[in-house]
Amino acid sequence: MFSKETYVSRRAELRKLVKSGIVILFGNNDSPVNYPSNSYYPFRQDSSFLYYFGLNRDGLVGVIDIDEGTETLVGNDIDIEDIVWFGSVNSVKDMAESVGVANTAPMKSLQIICNNALKQKRPIHFLPPYRYDTKLQIFDLLGIHPNQQKEAASLELIKAVVKMRSTKEPQEIAEIEDACSIGYKMHTTAMRLTKPGFTEKFIGGQVDGTAHSYGAMVSFATIFTQHGEIMHGTPSWDVLESGRLALCDSGAENRNNYCSDNTRTYPVNGKFTQRQREIYSIVEACHDYVLDVAKPGVKWYDVHMAVCRLMTDKLKEIGLMKGDTEEAVRAGAHAMFLPHGLGHMMGMDVHDMEGLGQNYVGFDDEIQPSTQFGTNCLRMGRRLEKGFVVTDEPGIYFIPALIDDWKSQGLHKDFINYEMLETYKDFGGIRIEDDLLITDDGCRFLGTERIPYHPDDVEEFMRNN
Amino acid sequence: MFSKETYVSRRAELRKLVKSGIVILFGNNDSPVNYPSNSYYPFRQDSSFLYYFGLNRDGLVGVIDIDEGTETLVGNDIDIEDIVWFGSVNSVKDMAESVGVANTAPMKSLQIICNNALKQKRPIHFLPPYRYDTKLQIFDLLGIHPNQQKEAASLELIKAVVKMRSTKEPQEIAEIEDACSIGYKMHTTAMRLTKPGFTEKFIGGQVDGTAHSYGAMVSFATIFTQHGEIMHGTPSWDVLESGRLALCDSGAENRNNYCSDNTRTYPVNGKFTQRQREIYSIVEACHDYVLDVAKPGVKWYDVHMAVCRLMTDKLKEIGLMKGDTEEAVRAGAHAMFLPHGLGHMMGMDVHDMEGLGQNYVGFDDEIQPSTQFGTNCLRMGRRLEKGFVVTDEPGIYFIPALIDDWKSQGLHKDFINYEMLETYKDFGGIRIEDDLLITDDGCRFLGTERIPYHPDDVEEFMRNN
Ligand SMILES: [Mn+2]
Ligand SMILES: [Mn+2]
Repeated sequence: MFSKETYVSRRAELRKLVKSGIVILFGNNDSPVNYPSNSYYPFRQDSSFLYYFGLNRDGLVGVIDIDEGTETLVGNDIDIEDIVWFGSVNSVKDMAESVGVANTAPMKSLQIICNNALKQKRPIHFLPPYRYDTKLQIFDLLGIHPNQQKEAASLELIKAVVKMRSTKEPQEIAEIEDACSIGYKMHTTAMRLTKPGFTEKFIGGQVDGTAHSYGAMVSFATIFTQHGEIMHGTPSWDVLESGRLALCDSGAENRNNYCSDNTRTYPVNGKFTQRQREIYSIVEACHDYVLDVAKPGVKWYDVHMAVCRLMTDKLKEIGLMKGDTEEAVRAGAHAMFLPHGLGHMMGMDVHDMEGLGQNYVGFDDEIQPSTQFGTNCLRMGRRLEKGFVVTDEPGIYFIPALIDDWKSQGLHKDFINYEMLETYKDFGGIRIEDDLLITDDGCRFLGTERIPYHPDDVEEFMRNN
Repeated sequence: MFSKETYVSRRAELRKLVKSGIVILFGNNDSPVNYPSNSYYPFRQDSSFLYYFGLNRDGLVGVIDIDEGTETLVGNDIDIEDIVWFGSVNSVKDMAESVGVANTAPMKSLQIICNNALKQKRPIHFLPPYRYDTKLQIFDLLGIHPNQQKEAASLELIKAVVKMRSTKEPQEIAEIEDACSIGYKMHTTAMRLTKPGFTEKFIGGQVDGTAHSYGAMVSFATIFTQHGEIMHGTPSWDVLESGRLALCDSGAENRNNYCSDNTRTYPVNGKFTQRQREIYSIVEACHDYVLDVAKPGVKWYDVHMAVCRLMTDKLKEIGLMKGDTEEAVRAGAHAMFLPHGLGHMMGMDVHDMEGLGQNYVGFDDEIQPSTQFGTNCLRMGRRLEKGFVVTDEPGIYFIPALIDDWKSQGLHKDFINYEMLETYKDFGGIRIEDDLLITDDGCRFLGTERIPYHPDDVEEFMRNN
């Protein structure tokens, strides 16, 4: 949690940007798992609520009446039976004071606030809801069916929030660095433990445990798999085998809810084969190339495309692709190997602000999302600005189902060497991912301790740990 | 997952018990965390859906038309883009076959099924929903507002499910034993690591990690705290201190979603003080006493009350309570020390079937829930039957807020020695919990490896590990 002044001034800026009406920021509630009171899903506050109100407790709603110039924290206090079960917690009044909010109100008053605003025909601004309980709340308060809520969400509010949250303040960057330092512990734990004989589950579990031990949550479900070619492959019961690659994509969400997101791919037995090193080095080159290209003013879409061209050039060198590089990339042939985008914004959400709508977060009037397979997964295309944090995560994958699918259609057969590709169906996939801060005139990786990724460094780390 | 025959015969039995109408069992969906597609909350299927349909995937609904004698698995197949991201999964048809269900239908057909049944005025049986997405589904399908759904849920279906799920089959008991063996690893990990200087978070995180490493989830949010007097105290940043007690209440939910639930309390420095051992021995005696008393035909309410009397007797011996034991317990004075129930049913849910309604799961015409403080938290009172699994978890707590509250009201001052109690405000709390299987003529603890809890055993374990 930051200083009271931080939240006061963020809300003041928000009021200026949205101009009029009432802003309602819904905090999150506990998430039931298998019955109403089992909350082993750890509580996760809404990121925008955190950004403007800073309070990490369930059952709160923030109301900003721009026209009247008032701010209200809505929520109920707890009673003695709750204290027995959960210990004492601050009153709603104390919480409001801690973030510079003058007024408090019990939850039942939210309906009155909404009814009055509706009667006065004043705009009620809310963000697109993603939790079903919030959708129900909005339905009951405003009579808008959940299916219509995304469209009914306030464009002014979305744009204001995206504008403010896109550029990370120095104190936010310090939090991301902290998350990266927990991420370092998570990844090096996995690298240390990876050996033939353990299950993927075992290693993945230790990664999760490391996050929890340092007071973090994982920023998304940990990926630890010998099937790197499955993008979101959760740890299976498969036993790690010598000769295969293990891919670990994981991150921490630290105590103040800032994220890290890194991927490493390494040999189960600690030593790359010649073929693995060859493909790995292409991914490594693509990953490092971003450092040369990304800076304020450059479109992230162009960085993505530059990386796709470099990857195509290098795949041509080893014979997996062929033909003219420009043409191949324009046609989308590279997406056989890289069927996702180069990276996404990162902040309090690991895909930062994704719930507000990719079109507002990653794109603008100048640059719109692509519909081409692969590039359609690029979550951001717009020009970089100082203070943006984006992930740099190229990968090369050999996806048997996709190979069969494209081959049977004869897709991009002038650019892809299907005969050779057949021999890679048992390869798996490689991804290397780091978190990039856009600086005054370039960019740098976040995380003071760097998780090893140059192939010699990886082998050395695994030999010595 | 059990054999096809298991699910076929369970559904046949359910049809017999419910007699007529259409049964709709909603499977769970992914749970969004901070934006729609971030599902770091691990997927958890609905327990009753698992019990009758056995399928551990999101986006499924089971429909049993009792009148027509048909069974249908409702769900959508996935496409090639999903395969790139998540790997291939079985088709809905294959899944249905694996559990002996003859028919499949896409999700959009559920509305038609419901509309037809409504037109024919046939009863549509559903269980009380606890997930907000399910509530929305029911609202859209049947037009029942979420606030009315608990009342609209089918009593016949609830009673049939409770009847069947209460008595654990041998294969279910084997699964619970498996969960207990993971629980053993979780608890002994915590005991091994507990030493002055670590944070509560660190130890709690390693407990979570141990569960995940063995392919389990935690069955509820892990409790690891030096403040055992807070019932649901999640791990804090506090550093473990010599002289204090650490309480760990945690359990595993194994790969087939069966749970364990154990609590241990031990000295941070590995050695009980005289005062700690005195209180600990009372809890230990209460915990072990249940083994003598619990058996088929005995009311769990009576076991709870017998334990409360034994605890009162022993608290009188050391001077914390006074007066007539029977009168003290009848008045509820013991709830100062034990403000919760002796235990709850356990199975696929750690509080088994709690979502179906405590009154149907734990009580019946013969025995109703109490409203007295403390005993009102007893989640089950009815007569034990062979095959029931219940937790045995007495505790003694010194809760400063409760002491102050009762003392200022002069509550139970004939039974409680407030002067002495004042000196225990810094003590914390102790609980010992194990999982009890009701057998032919008595009961036994589940878990082949027993987590140490006799004070000498605890000290020996902590000395040697
Ligand atoms: Mn990423
Ligand atoms: Mn319990």
